[in-house]
Amino acid sequence: MSIVVVGSVALDSITTAAGTRPQLLGGSATYFTLAARRFTNVRLVAAVGQDIPKKVLSSLRHPDVDLTGLAVLPGQTFRWEGRYSDDFTSRTTTGLFLGVFETFQPHIPPAHRKCSTLFLANIDPRLQGLVMSQVQRPRLIGVDTIDHWIRNQRDVLLKLLKHIDVMFLNEEEARLLSQASSLKAMGAWLRKLGPSIVIIKQGWYGAAGWIGSSMVWVPAYPVDNTVDPTGAGDAFAGGVLGTLDRARRVDASTLRQAMLCGSVVGSFCVEAFGVSGLERLTPARFAKRLGGLKQIAGVRG
Amino acid sequence: MSIVVVGSVALDSITTAAGTRPQLLGGSATYFTLAARRFTNVRLVAAVGQDIPKKVLSSLRHPDVDLTGLAVLPGQTFRWEGRYSDDFTSRTTTGLFLGVFETFQPHIPPAHRKCSTLFLANIDPRLQGLVMSQVQRPRLIGVDTIDHWIRNQRDVLLKLLKHIDVMFLNEEEARLLSQASSLKAMGAWLRKLGPSIVIIKQGWYGAAGWIGSSMVWVPAYPVDNTVDPTGAGDAFAGGVLGTLDRARRVDASTLRQAMLCGSVVGSFCVEAFGVSGLERLTPARFAKRLGGLKQIAGVRG
Repeated sequence: MSIVVVGSVALDSITTAAGTRPQLLGGSATYFTLAARRFTNVRLVAAVGQDIPKKVLSSLRHPDVDLTGLAVLPGQTFRWEGRYSDDFTSRTTTGLFLGVFETFQPHIPPAHRKCSTLFLANIDPRLQGLVMSQVQRPRLIGVDTIDHWIRNQRDVLLKLLKHIDVMFLNEEEARLLSQASSLKAMGAWLRKLGPSIVIIKQGWYGAAGWIGSSMVWVPAYPVDNTVDPTGAGDAFAGGVLGTLDRARRVDASTLRQAMLCGSVVGSFCVEAFGVSGLERLTPARFAKRLGGLKQIAGVRG
Repeated sequence: MSIVVVGSVALDSITTAAGTRPQLLGGSATYFTLAARRFTNVRLVAAVGQDIPKKVLSSLRHPDVDLTGLAVLPGQTFRWEGRYSDDFTSRTTTGLFLGVFETFQPHIPPAHRKCSTLFLANIDPRLQGLVMSQVQRPRLIGVDTIDHWIRNQRDVLLKLLKHIDVMFLNEEEARLLSQASSLKAMGAWLRKLGPSIVIIKQGWYGAAGWIGSSMVWVPAYPVDNTVDPTGAGDAFAGGVLGTLDRARRVDASTLRQAMLCGSVVGSFCVEAFGVSGLERLTPARFAKRLGGLKQIAGVRG
């Protein structure tokens, strides 16, 4: 069992009510990897520039993370600079420098072409399609996207979704793509595009998922204090797909379990700047929160 | 077992994406009553003007609703005119005429002064206090309020809350009152004010409740199409307190059951203009949705 994830590894500068932190390790593939590795082996495919500080990259070095596919290219690392409103309801991108990411063409190392799960983290859907053409059909293919691609690469995205098993997107993106007004209508519309599982992320409210004829709803784990929500959606996806990758079969019950795990992993993510929240996650802390979340949700087991 | 509810009975003119409807029966006590009567007997205390059309008022006439406390006073009925944004995320009050409500002094008929549950629907907290002084201590006292009173009668409200068992408010109101940023901190802060149960309503996401050392979270029942969300919060409160009024004891498990019932009742409310959605509720339809919601939430039983 292993997940190949393709996406971005970045240097983030983040400002929230809790302060400003420059030069943090970030990127969609980074957060996904550091969450999913708690459940299964992860093989990361991305590109960074030669300018990336070694110390920053060390956060990705773990026995359960394979970095063979992380290319270090001449040039600069993708940088993102953002600021959150004090109540975390909105964020503004104050700086964006693509660097080596501008010409990034994902190349899946031969040893990675056979995997049980593939996650296409948020990148250009044309590149997501390129990745799919390089691998043997995995048991599960997950995808995440953002409003930018929904607006600018809608047709490519719709074509891609025909081959996807698990689609992640947030509520505004689901509304933008489906033009539906109710959550139920969004879920139904999105599933018609191809994915057998659709998961709409709703931030601190939780997430709604659909599989077969079932809808599954899980709350977000209630944290004392949000410090930095960056990457929480990717960490959630990592928890979900990490759990599903190890599940013998995928049904409403395993999807609920996976979403509960994703919710717990996401809660660690938001409690500190960058990936440091995910680094605080231990098996004991995870189990305690998972039990607590099940009690809150009234879920047995 | 019976609930006395004190609040407003109004004539609403409502515009949503689905159209405009003038002269609808509305008001906080109305929605609460028509929801709670599905679970227990309700005694309504409110005032309307002599101008209220008999036909409009007929929606309140049911064997399980006692209208002894509904005063018909010389003057005009409280009128509210509002418009919702197409996605229902905001609403604007376009007209407000207090009429007899301006000088409303709730008078609890002697026969109503002994009840098992009292619900103080959204009115001036000074009047809510006046009501409490007229009744024998019920087993449960519930209260709802809005941002207007939090801003303008904060001290009166805080004093009142010391005697309250179940407090309902929406998330923005909870934030305004507590100045806390996380849901968990809001719940903890509000419970320190007095209420042993705090319920934060989160619209189409669901609701979070606290009792003893437990937090309880239930999703909103996902409807196909929202037509008019007016009164959904009061209908939810009616479902919750209607269920709790009949429960032998109130603990986390009964609170969850009550909130699930409130969520289902609220879902009927939003599906049609005014109270007509609540009128479509039958025991069979209710049971079907309650079962469906439990499956979505993964709750046993």
